[in-house]
This record gives sequence, C-alpha cells and structure tokens, in this order.
Amino acid sequence: MTIEALTAALREFARERDWDQFHSPKNLAAALIVEAGELLEHFQWLSEAESRALDEERRHAVSLELADVLLYLVRLADQLDVDLLAAADEKLAQNAQKYPVERARGTHLKYTEL
Amino acid sequence: MTIEALTAALREFARERDWDQFHSPKNLAAALIVEAGELLEHFQWLSEAESRALDEERRHAVSLELADVLLYLVRLADQLDVDLLAAADEKLAQNAQKYPVERARGTHLKYTEL
Amino acid sequence: MTIEALTAALREFARERDWDQFHSPKNLAAALIVEAGELLEHFQWLSEAESRALDEERRHAVSLELADVLLYLVRLADQLDVDLLAAADEKLAQNAQKYPVERARGTHLKYTEL
Amino acid sequence: MTIEALTAALREFARERDWDQFHSPKNLAAALIVEAGELLEHFQWLSEAESRALDEERRHAVSLELADVLLYLVRLADQLDVDLLAAADEKLAQNAQKYPVERARGTHLKYTEL
Repeated sequence: MTIEALTAALREFARERDWDQFHSPKNLAAALIVEAGELLEHFQWLSEAESRALDEERRHAVSLELADVLLYLVRLADQLDVDLLAAADEKLAQNAQKYPVERARGTHLKYTEL
Repeated sequence: MTIEALTAALREFARERDWDQFHSPKNLAAALIVEAGELLEHFQWLSEAESRALDEERRHAVSLELADVLLYLVRLADQLDVDLLAAADEKLAQNAQKYPVERARGTHLKYTEL
Repeated sequence: MTIEALTAALREFARERDWDQFHSPKNLAAALIVEAGELLEHFQWLSEAESRALDEERRHAVSLELADVLLYLVRLADQLDVDLLAAADEKLAQNAQKYPVERARGTHLKYTEL
Repeated sequence: MTIEALTAALREFARERDWDQFHSPKNLAAALIVEAGELLEHFQWLSEAESRALDEERRHAVSLELADVLLYLVRLADQLDVDLLAAADEKLAQNAQKYPVERARGTHLKYTEL
C-alpha cells in the first residue's frame, strides 16, 4: 500500500457510492476533525506514561482511528489536487527553519517564543 | 518522499531537538487535532461550492495544514509502532463491509442507519 | 439553572467520585474538544440548509452534545478560576472592535483581512 | 452577565452585521471546534501539573479562548432554539445514572466499561 494507491482506492470507493456530492473539502475537513476527536478520546484521561504503554487491544483500536484520519486526509488532498507528501516535505523544511536545533533543543516553546 | 522516509525524517528531527520527552501519544493526538482545527478554519465560513474552488494562495495555505496533520499522524503512528498504511488497508476493508455499494449509494447515512 | 449552580454541581459531582485527579485543565480541554467533535459529527454531511431544519429527534440529540461541551467548559473555567461570563463579556467587547459594523457587514472575512 | 443576556447580545451582533446567512448550525459547530482547538493548543505540550499552574498572562489568554467557545455555543443553541442550561441539567442527570458514585469513584473508565 502507498499513498497513491490509497488515493485511487478512495476515489473508486466514493465513485461507486456516488459520494462525490458529499465530499466537498469543507465536509471532508469536518469529517477529519471528527475522527481526530475519536482518536484523542482514547487518550483524554490517560497520563502521558499510560499513553506510551497501551495494551494490545487499545493499540489496535487506536491504529484504526489513525487510519480514519489518514483516509480523510488523503481524500481531502485528492479533492484539492494537493500532493500530500510534497506538502509534507515543504512543511518539514519550514519547520527546520523555525526550530533550529540549537535553540529548540529540550524546549516545547513555540517558534514565536524561542 | 514516502511515508517511511517521512517517519525516519521526523524521528531524526525529534531526536536532534530532544523532543521525544514531549512526544507522548497523548500529546501528539492533541497536537494533531489542533492542526485539524487550523485546517477546518479555512473552510468554516465557506459554502461547500466555495470550498471546491479555492484560489491558489488559499489552496497552498491549506496544503500546508494538510501537511501538519500528516506530520503528527506519522509521528504518532511511529511512537505507537503502528503501520499506518496497513491500518488504512484494514479500515478500507471494514468500510467496504459497512457501506455496501447497493445500500450506501447516494446517501450520507451512517452505516448504523442504512 | 445558572452557570454558578452548574459550576457547583459539577464540583460536587467530581468530588464525590474523586475525579479531581483526572480533571487537570489539560485533560478537560481535551475532553471538551472530543465533545465538540461529537457535536460536529451530527452536521458533517448535512447541507447548511439541512442543518437549519433538524427533525426533533436529531435536535434533542444535538442539545445533549451542546450540554456536554458546556459541562466541560464550566468545569475547566472552575479549575482555572476563570469567570466564564465575565470573559465572554470581555471577548464580546474585543469582537465589536475587531469587526466594526460598517466594515464587517455581509462578509465572513477575518478581521485581519477586513 | 447571564446566558440569556449573552444570547441576546450575540443575536444583535449578528443582526447588525448581516451574519445570520453564515451562522448555520453546521458552520457554528465548525467554528466552535476551531476555537476548542485554539484552547487545547495552550495545553498540548504542558504536563498536567503545568496546566494546573498557569502564569497570569497565560491564564488570561486561556480565559479568552474559553469565552470564544462559549460565544459559539450560545449562538448555536440560539439558532437551534435549544435551552442550553436545561440541556445541561438533563445531561447532568444522565451522567449521575451512568456514573454511580460507588462504581465510578477514583476511575476514569467510560461508563460502558464500569
């Protein structure tokens, strides 16, 4: 599986069900954050340490929430004709500029406060 | 760029900055939804039709928000030792079961209501 | 019922269950956005017009999601010793400055773009 | 200030600016979660202990994010003709049933797991 194959599979999934009418970028961005909420729900009352040590059942449930986020992300990128991995590459370069190693090391301050 | 390469790049990015201490799954799930909110903000007052016809400046800004979501998603999957694309494959198969073409066509009903 | 009475009721609810240990502002802010996601889920595939014309069953379900958001909002304000209604008053005054009637009328532009 | 007064003030604020056209429940639910994301952003990298001990500047900034969530919550309830405090009362009663003191004490388990 690759992002490209996933993009094609989701496009076909929507086409077969005549779902393009519902898959506006606005709706997909809403659906994505709804899934991100279901993901966060698994962690909301856990300590950080507990979140690093999920049992296998929970880890599997979380993996499917991660998948839900990815599916909407890929679908949204496709509807906007955005190359997701190229955008990630661009963002990574920006982050390296915003968070130089020597100033960002060991702190969680936002780049505007570094 | 691939998901695997992105995973490795983000791992190195965090290692250099000593950020693993902040990158608990709990915190990354929170950071992910914060970025999903920044993504949705672009669309909140647009009509669906407007969201399908972004101008180039907006489309680029949105692409970087998509990237932010992807970066945290990949980082979170790595911290949980989850294979993101395999999970997407599993979820896609589940969705095909939940939403059979003949019943899901042309409706946005949840599978529990089909 | 008033915000003050709700604050007191939630404080007692948590005290009886020994839940203060879980009710850090960080956790409550996460719980709040999770509920905001459940709220948005009701609307994600609806058109705006449909969202203005919910049937009674849906409207009731939505009202309970609104309540969930309010409960965490009130609880979080209490944990931070914030006067929620005073803060709303302050924000309302700020918004009136940011969005003067003559410039904001009929547009959904952000104040930074007006 | 009361919820009722806030409802009236927001209604007038929108009327003066001709914003009812944008304030569909769907859009307001999106705007609400976007604000909930800005709220959570303050806490995402903090430890729970740090989130309980904000400095005064941060606490004030957070209070305005709480206000933003409340404004959209009140506006959304008004658009749906929902009595927010009555809904909170109903939900509180449900929660008392779902989380009986003797079983819920000292645990963050969901009611389905108690």
